[in-house]
Amino acid sequence: MSTAHEHFHPFIPAGGVGSRLWPLSRADAPKFLLDLTGSGSSLLRNTYDRLADLSADGVMVVTGRSHSEAVRRQLPECRERDLILEPSPKDSGAAIGLAAAVLWLRDPMAIIGSFAADHVVEPTEEFHRAVGEAIETAATGRIVTIGVTPTSPATGFGYIRATESLGLPDAPSALRVEEFVEKPDAQTALRYLESGDYTWNAGMFVAPAQLMLEHLRRSQPELHEGIMEIAHAWERPDRDEVMDRVWPNLPKIAIDYAVAEPAAAAGDVAMVPASFTWDDVGDFAAISRLNRAQDGVSVATLGDAQKVLADDCSGLVVSETDRVIALIGLEDVVVVDTPDALLVTTREHAQRVKDTVSALKNSGRGDVL
Amino acid sequence: MSTAHEHFHPFIPAGGVGSRLWPLSRADAPKFLLDLTGSGSSLLRNTYDRLADLSADGVMVVTGRSHSEAVRRQLPECRERDLILEPSPKDSGAAIGLAAAVLWLRDPMAIIGSFAADHVVEPTEEFHRAVGEAIETAATGRIVTIGVTPTSPATGFGYIRATESLGLPDAPSALRVEEFVEKPDAQTALRYLESGDYTWNAGMFVAPAQLMLEHLRRSQPELHEGIMEIAHAWERPDRDEVMDRVWPNLPKIAIDYAVAEPAAAAGDVAMVPASFTWDDVGDFAAISRLNRAQDGVSVATLGDAQKVLADDCSGLVVSETDRVIALIGLEDVVVVDTPDALLVTTREHAQRVKDTVSALKNSGRGDVL
Repeated sequence: MSTAHEHFHPFIPAGGVGSRLWPLSRADAPKFLLDLTGSGSSLLRNTYDRLADLSADGVMVVTGRSHSEAVRRQLPECRERDLILEPSPKDSGAAIGLAAAVLWLRDPMAIIGSFAADHVVEPTEEFHRAVGEAIETAATGRIVTIGVTPTSPATGFGYIRATESLGLPDAPSALRVEEFVEKPDAQTALRYLESGDYTWNAGMFVAPAQLMLEHLRRSQPELHEGIMEIAHAWERPDRDEVMDRVWPNLPKIAIDYAVAEPAAAAGDVAMVPASFTWDDVGDFAAISRLNRAQDGVSVATLGDAQKVLADDCSGLVVSETDRVIALIGLEDVVVVDTPDALLVTTREHAQRVKDTVSALKNSGRGDVL
Repeated sequence: MSTAHEHFHPFIPAGGVGSRLWPLSRADAPKFLLDLTGSGSSLLRNTYDRLADLSADGVMVVTGRSHSEAVRRQLPECRERDLILEPSPKDSGAAIGLAAAVLWLRDPMAIIGSFAADHVVEPTEEFHRAVGEAIETAATGRIVTIGVTPTSPATGFGYIRATESLGLPDAPSALRVEEFVEKPDAQTALRYLESGDYTWNAGMFVAPAQLMLEHLRRSQPELHEGIMEIAHAWERPDRDEVMDRVWPNLPKIAIDYAVAEPAAAAGDVAMVPASFTWDDVGDFAAISRLNRAQDGVSVATLGDAQKVLADDCSGLVVSETDRVIALIGLEDVVVVDTPDALLVTTREHAQRVKDTVSALKNSGRGDVL
């Protein structure tokens, strides 16, 4: 293990409501703040714990100002200087760029790592192994993605094509990235799976902060200038004042366009394959998968299972109220019971919850979103 | 029309929780107190109105003491002397026998009519026609049931076999009853339907009070003595005292065993067929039928339809809370949303709600029953 690990600074961009998980997820209770696995901890808390072991200097979190109280409550050990609160939602370019800039000013040798707040990853050992190799690979001057070995021809993820080893002694599995590809159709996904040349793009990456910022400066000079101005004020008393002045004018752009694609074109991008199970908990079908029913019980429950009475049913119940829930003769049902909204659907239709959220917005029921 | 109509005294035995309609129906909100048709009135109120037009002297109601407040609220014009409050649940023999005895003491020529509180009958004109003929038939010294012309081979009702006309000028459709038969199996029900010799036993009957009581005296002397003692005290100040002393010791027996069967054996029973639509609102499938969805809407709603958002669904929603209810991709679903209990099932499984109620009772959740 090289000294690169001493300079590793992971951070967590924590954004996105997860509208396919309505009415469990809400604008003020986004997916990452929820315990969706029955672990007793939120996805954010679990992500933080998974990263804390890898870092000698804490874990940074980037989230919306409206979530500051909840995040502080869930992560009491997170230092004030490690909590970036966005005054308004920008895209990932600003969030990740600012984290990289703040960390680079603290440590010019910083190798940063960006890990979404709302993914479920297991086992942690394999995650640590993959991130370890990614750090070593990043130390050779590359932006390194983690590629998850696909277990099904999923059409909901982007894929990464990589076949050629980089031949790095400290990162034996690291490969050169040939291509990032968008979400494929079912036939293409099957071809990707069978070829063995593709991994899922889990949106996790590790890179030297300096290299990230250099790409950002070249491709998005205005964004780069803005985040550097905020970063320079970060440890000063006028931090909030500068944030409030500069942030609203930052361009909205995804980090993929701002950095990943230009870097890939320059041949600066590598991939470390990983075989951990990875779930972005995209819908209630995923929650159902992650909360398998116990032996002899065919309905999984998130919440108090004592209040659920299921007769000849399978599926998922999410119980956020004190009510008795009785289900009779329903296959693959999804029932989400909250104080002000009830959802009933099936696992098959889990993706359509997003349309319902849109319909509620359009019909003036934003109060329950 | 003979003078028999002047002596007609209808009454409504209002009992039975309707446990297949849980969690809409409860011990303290039984089926008959609910508006299950979206008419704006309860089943009891509608039954009362249907009978009030036929009686010069009001309509009597027999119900449990615990429902007295609710019944008085729904039927403000019901006189105190016409409200029989049972101190504890006995079977129909005591309830109907006492009503008959009280009415007989008021009017020795009384022709009584017993009509369940929780049935939906339409149109009222046909109901009035059939009851009119039943009164004329009863005046000839018979116990007269109303037989509903079957429209399907239903297995949930008892049937009445009757083919021979009684040849009464004022009741041209009245027939001699040959046989009462229990709920048949599907094949037998089909045979009954095709033969044209059977009608559904809707549990409605009209009879001279004196004849009823005479049968009761012979078959159930102990019950007869008890109800007569209460009836004699009915208009006296010691009514409640006598009720509380005598009622608890009355035998529990159904009116069918106490009167109808002995009377049928004596050849005293007639039947007037009727072609009104009749629904005993036995389960949520029935409520769904009675609350057909509007044009272009495939989900019927009992409650505020504005709060229900259904995408590609059919079925029934009963909404008793302020919550938004979102349904996606469900066929023939039944959702009953109440403040302390939620039921989700399908029309197909509507009858099984009773089992769920039993299961809740056995698991110590009587608080939601």
